Amino acid sequence: MMAFAHEQARGDAAGGATSSVVADASELRQRGSKGHKKPGTVAEDDDKESGRGAGAGAGAAGGCEVTVTDSIERVFEAEPVPPWPQQVTPRALVTSLFLAVLFSVIVMKLSLTTGIIPSLNVSAGLLGFFLLRVWTAAVKDPRRPFTRQENTVVQTCVVSAYGIAFSGGFGSYLFGMSETIASQAAEENNAGNVKEPRLAWMIGFLFLVSFVGLFALVPLRKVMIIDYRLTYPSGTATAHLINGFHTPDGSERAKSQVLTLIKSSVASFFWGFFQWFYTAGDGCGFGQFPALGLAAYQNRFYFDFSTTYVGAGMICPHTVNVSVLLGGILSWGLLWPLIAQKRGSWFDAKLPDSSLEGMQGYRVFIAIAIILGDGLYKFATVLLRTVASIAASTEKRKFFGALPVNGDGSNGAAAPAPPPSFDDARRTEFFTKDQIPVPVAIGGYVVIAAVSVAAVPRLIFPQLEWYHVLAVYLMAPVLAFCNAYGMGLTDWSLASTYGKLAIFAFGAWAGKPHSGVLVGLATCGIMMNIVSTAADLMQDLKTGYMTLASPRSMFVSQVVGTAMGCVVGPSVFWLFYRAFPGVGTHRSAYPAPYALIYRNMAILGVDGFSKLPDNCLTLCCVFFVGAIAVDMARDMAPEKVAKFVPLPMAMAIPFYIGPYFAIDMFLGSVVLFAWEWVDKDQANFFAYAVASGLICGDGVWSLPQALLSLFNVKPPICMKFLSRHMNDKVDDFIATLS
Amino acid sequence: MMAFAHEQARGDAAGGATSSVVADASELRQRGSKGHKKPGTVAEDDDKESGRGAGAGAGAAGGCEVTVTDSIERVFEAEPVPPWPQQVTPRALVTSLFLAVLFSVIVMKLSLTTGIIPSLNVSAGLLGFFLLRVWTAAVKDPRRPFTRQENTVVQTCVVSAYGIAFSGGFGSYLFGMSETIASQAAEENNAGNVKEPRLAWMIGFLFLVSFVGLFALVPLRKVMIIDYRLTYPSGTATAHLINGFHTPDGSERAKSQVLTLIKSSVASFFWGFFQWFYTAGDGCGFGQFPALGLAAYQNRFYFDFSTTYVGAGMICPHTVNVSVLLGGILSWGLLWPLIAQKRGSWFDAKLPDSSLEGMQGYRVFIAIAIILGDGLYKFATVLLRTVASIAASTEKRKFFGALPVNGDGSNGAAAPAPPPSFDDARRTEFFTKDQIPVPVAIGGYVVIAAVSVAAVPRLIFPQLEWYHVLAVYLMAPVLAFCNAYGMGLTDWSLASTYGKLAIFAFGAWAGKPHSGVLVGLATCGIMMNIVSTAADLMQDLKTGYMTLASPRSMFVSQVVGTAMGCVVGPSVFWLFYRAFPGVGTHRSAYPAPYALIYRNMAILGVDGFSKLPDNCLTLCCVFFVGAIAVDMARDMAPEKVAKFVPLPMAMAIPFYIGPYFAIDMFLGSVVLFAWEWVDKDQANFFAYAVASGLICGDGVWSLPQALLSLFNVKPPICMKFLSRHMNDKVDDFIATLS
Repeated sequence: MMAFAHEQARGDAAGGATSSVVADASELRQRGSKGHKKPGTVAEDDDKESGRGAGAGAGAAGGCEVTVTDSIERVFEAEPVPPWPQQVTPRALVTSLFLAVLFSVIVMKLSLTTGIIPSLNVSAGLLGFFLLRVWTAAVKDPRRPFTRQENTVVQTCVVSAYGIAFSGGFGSYLFGMSETIASQAAEENNAGNVKEPRLAWMIGFLFLVSFVGLFALVPLRKVMIIDYRLTYPSGTATAHLINGFHTPDGSERAKSQVLTLIKSSVASFFWGFFQWFYTAGDGCGFGQFPALGLAAYQNRFYFDFSTTYVGAGMICPHTVNVSVLLGGILSWGLLWPLIAQKRGSWFDAKLPDSSLEGMQGYRVFIAIAIILGDGLYKFATVLLRTVASIAASTEKRKFFGALPVNGDGSNGAAAPAPPPSFDDARRTEFFTKDQIPVPVAIGGYVVIAAVSVAAVPRLIFPQLEWYHVLAVYLMAPVLAFCNAYGMGLTDWSLASTYGKLAIFAFGAWAGKPHSGVLVGLATCGIMMNIVSTAADLMQDLKTGYMTLASPRSMFVSQVVGTAMGCVVGPSVFWLFYRAFPGVGTHRSAYPAPYALIYRNMAILGVDGFSKLPDNCLTLCCVFFVGAIAVDMARDMAPEKVAKFVPLPMAMAIPFYIGPYFAIDMFLGSVVLFAWEWVDKDQANFFAYAVASGLICGDGVWSLPQALLSLFNVKPPICMKFLSRHMNDKVDDFIATLS
Repeated sequence: MMAFAHEQARGDAAGGATSSVVADASELRQRGSKGHKKPGTVAEDDDKESGRGAGAGAGAAGGCEVTVTDSIERVFEAEPVPPWPQQVTPRALVTSLFLAVLFSVIVMKLSLTTGIIPSLNVSAGLLGFFLLRVWTAAVKDPRRPFTRQENTVVQTCVVSAYGIAFSGGFGSYLFGMSETIASQAAEENNAGNVKEPRLAWMIGFLFLVSFVGLFALVPLRKVMIIDYRLTYPSGTATAHLINGFHTPDGSERAKSQVLTLIKSSVASFFWGFFQWFYTAGDGCGFGQFPALGLAAYQNRFYFDFSTTYVGAGMICPHTVNVSVLLGGILSWGLLWPLIAQKRGSWFDAKLPDSSLEGMQGYRVFIAIAIILGDGLYKFATVLLRTVASIAASTEKRKFFGALPVNGDGSNGAAAPAPPPSFDDARRTEFFTKDQIPVPVAIGGYVVIAAVSVAAVPRLIFPQLEWYHVLAVYLMAPVLAFCNAYGMGLTDWSLASTYGKLAIFAFGAWAGKPHSGVLVGLATCGIMMNIVSTAADLMQDLKTGYMTLASPRSMFVSQVVGTAMGCVVGPSVFWLFYRAFPGVGTHRSAYPAPYALIYRNMAILGVDGFSKLPDNCLTLCCVFFVGAIAVDMARDMAPEKVAKFVPLPMAMAIPFYIGPYFAIDMFLGSVVLFAWEWVDKDQANFFAYAVASGLICGDGVWSLPQALLSLFNVKPPICMKFLSRHMNDKVDDFIATLS
């Protein structure tokens, strides 16, 4: 979900008046990892196959014959797995509540100041682990040992809770409705487009819209986790960590893996810390390192030294990494420069690149078109096969591989399914044991949707018509699937992008005279909440799958966490809002910059897609069809060819974000490839530990980083990159100062 | 000798009007490595003991029990070592001449433009190897295979030849005598202090002064190479490379070492290449990375990412690295900041830090005082023992360990001598086989000195008195010993520092009315030539020792190379001087910046040491005595304590240069230490290969770097480091530009 945080931070530059490419590039990236760590225990498994084959079934392409003999689940075999109600323990929930408040305060303050929020998930997980550890040490209860399943529950609950502090839009769409922000925008600040924040309606609104995402994808969990074997790099890393914390003593090899993981985490943490010192301003630091030259940097081709994405690249299948890089080259290397030449002809030459009416319009909507094309195709395939499967005997479906989706090849060369390893078999067994019945899921969705459709327009936003809300709920499952699927492949959640889509679709639908701005912001909020919680849930289910946590306990803990967030988030915001009168104004210590950006986007949105630059919609159609064509080609091509067909979803993400993270991931692929070449056994045994460590160390660093920012401690040095020409001028300027 | 180049570049900032700390810090550093490489062959040996125990006998402190079972000389045992006249072959000399011309042109152009000259030694060696390789492949002569000894000869010859292009002072002291430069200086530009460059006298002068350095230290070669086991990191690295080129086929383990060396070289080369892109201006790039913060950077505490010095740190004993770091902390961390507080009281507050009348005066002369203290003490010890040894039977002296200096403990805990390894024994055998008789060495020195004393004042510089020259030649052997000893420990040659001493001593002695400026410059030249060639010779002898090249062939090739240089150097300069009329003027493409700096130093020097800042001489005396006291303490302390006493010579070098290279070297120590901790056998077997590769890759990169500079290709990007405060200002400034 903090994936979301980043993506918002970046995406929101879209309609912004103040933001530029520089500001855009200085944003933090999504680090949706979650995890805990504890020295002396173990984390690794033969998930190599699962990870490698995941999503794209491309393991074979990378030369991935798994020879790992150590099975993590064999190590754990003697440990009993408590039934799911004993996984969601009261002590876990109390710990979660405490951490939810703590992290909500941090997130709220950051989103009201800079609007840039790092991923705090790993830190949350870490603190959760230590707190429960202390608790269980203090209150000894031999009947209730601290299990890895309980740990996963805390992790999930905390993250869903404090996530609301972000996705509730207190620094963006929700606060963008206020009078304070409206008065700063040039137009559309009439009463109909304004809604002052009040504690009651905010809590109500969040309760109405935040749960539906959880139900939306529950029926597809087995398809995504087991059949597609989606990677969810952060979820996988978290699972490795949690397993590491709880591994029973005894296994020497397991210990060596945990040691590797810890070393890698510590290195990654200190690397993050070191980098911090050089980021005194915009465009400063290693994150802006033009490793491929300044011209490439202008097009976001650079290596940003993010250990998170190098780690993710090591976990993701090679196909994903190559697809992401290809997408980056196609868009930022070819398409955008070509479109930029039409500046003045296709769109107003004076518009900054960050304007949705200019370059950013192409970036956002073409990316959405590809994602929708790929997502709809996949969704349709899954739906068809599921229906077929339900029509057939449902008895066989209880075990691994029963859903025939495995053979649909839609994720690359999905090969004849290999015989499941011990780990896979055991995990699948537990993952399918506690069912969340499909009727419950669909029923839940329908009930909540119905309540929302009735209540949101009536009680909260009279400007909304009931059919707006209904339409959102009809679209949401598909978009939620797209987002969860994309996140499974690349670790990116593009929730705010779907929010933008809602702003344009519904704002224009309502129209200017009918408070289109407010309608746009409100539907944006509903949409973002649904797609982000859905992706989060799926990532948590991946973690749960790998830690034998019951899907039911995952689901329950996410529901509880979300409920906590719906109360804690608005309350914390209210505290800030009442305590500091100037919140949202320029000169305040809490300017909430993205609130205005969102409002401006909504003002643009009421004019609908006609405001987009020329040929944008045509290109969207081309890429939408293209994505479907590529999917069909892969499904129909013989396996040998199919595995080289790139994944549209993975290609689309750098269309919008830029290829820099693709370079990180590709580097991860290269590192792994080189390692396998040098010492295949060692690489197979340690690669996941190293990759998880890279992700988690960086994630843990985010907490001290956020605290430094909170207490206004600024880095002392700017590592700046200037062209020779500019450097000469700057040197002259500096000489005049002294 | 290129050590010298760097040290000049930095040191010459001393009296400079234009240079500042920034310019100072942007200079390249000494990279005195020499080497060749060829894929598929080997370089490594059990020199671990020799290297580790070298100089400081501190191997034991670093936990260095050598367990390497592979002996490089066993691998070579079957290869015949040709007698010395067959090592110095005509084809080797022809190749050397060709390369001498090539590199003299490069060096000359650089010293007339920026005055900053990278180390080209490795590149020279590499080209030499390939040329001779082609030659021997084209003209097959089975009686005369291409041996490693011949390779060492070419290496030595080329480096001594093109070295004259630098140490001849065409960009510094020699050209500083010219009318062109004199007219730019404020004072002392009367006829008596001017000498126009002419081909004849320049060649004559160089012939008169360049050879004496070769004779000065020849009698001490066994003491320094065998008894003191001085490291000469670059010489050692070169020897590893040359051995690598010529290893007979067959040894798998040897091959793996060569592969490691090549990988390490390639990585180091590309790292150098990569760094280049970010050095568009002063203070730009990784070489200026304030890794410890800006305050530390101001005091030259930073990590400059120099692979050369990290490699040198891996080759040097831990004691040396720790001493260097201690010296850096004592001087730049404590002493200089304290003295800086006396600004305005001890010296004029307006003086830049680079002025010899201010901070730089303390730096240069206190460093010299320590070096002289340590050097004189060592020299006296060696002299006493040698005399004692000569008085005793000379028969025993032929073999290793016979000179009792081994036990004098003056280099740390010189422990009971370990039984010589096979490599050591065989190398010592060859090193002592071809004698250069002491009477020849001393006779040569005396004859050349006598001729110089008579000829230099009479034929070239009438301003010099014969006793000036005589005094230089009396002082020279001690200073040459100091310089060679210091270079053996730390790889730094401080030749220009000794030159500065001469300027102050002799310029003042002659006095203003008697053309003291010209006397200072001329004696500076004599002194620099002697001390730099002496150190070079000793380094080459180390390489020769490790490649079984005869000391006699080393000596002869250095003599021949020097002779080549004495003709080629002035000729190339003459070519530039006649072809480009403006050489030496500000607006010319060849401003020869250091010529004016040297002249200004000499103008300061005629007033003698009285121009130095207050208390400088007092402090010099304190440190001079201190160095001797430390030496005596080490000699008298029990072994256990002695090995923890730092080496004054090693401590002195950062006093002047700054501690940044000490941080590199210390890091090398740490890397080695960590490696030994993780896998002792692997570290012992591969550390030298990795270290040599680091030094050589960086060295090879210097050639393309020099060529880029020659053709005026400038790097595109500046990686700049600004304080947050300054960055804000610069960002505002940049905003005003667009």
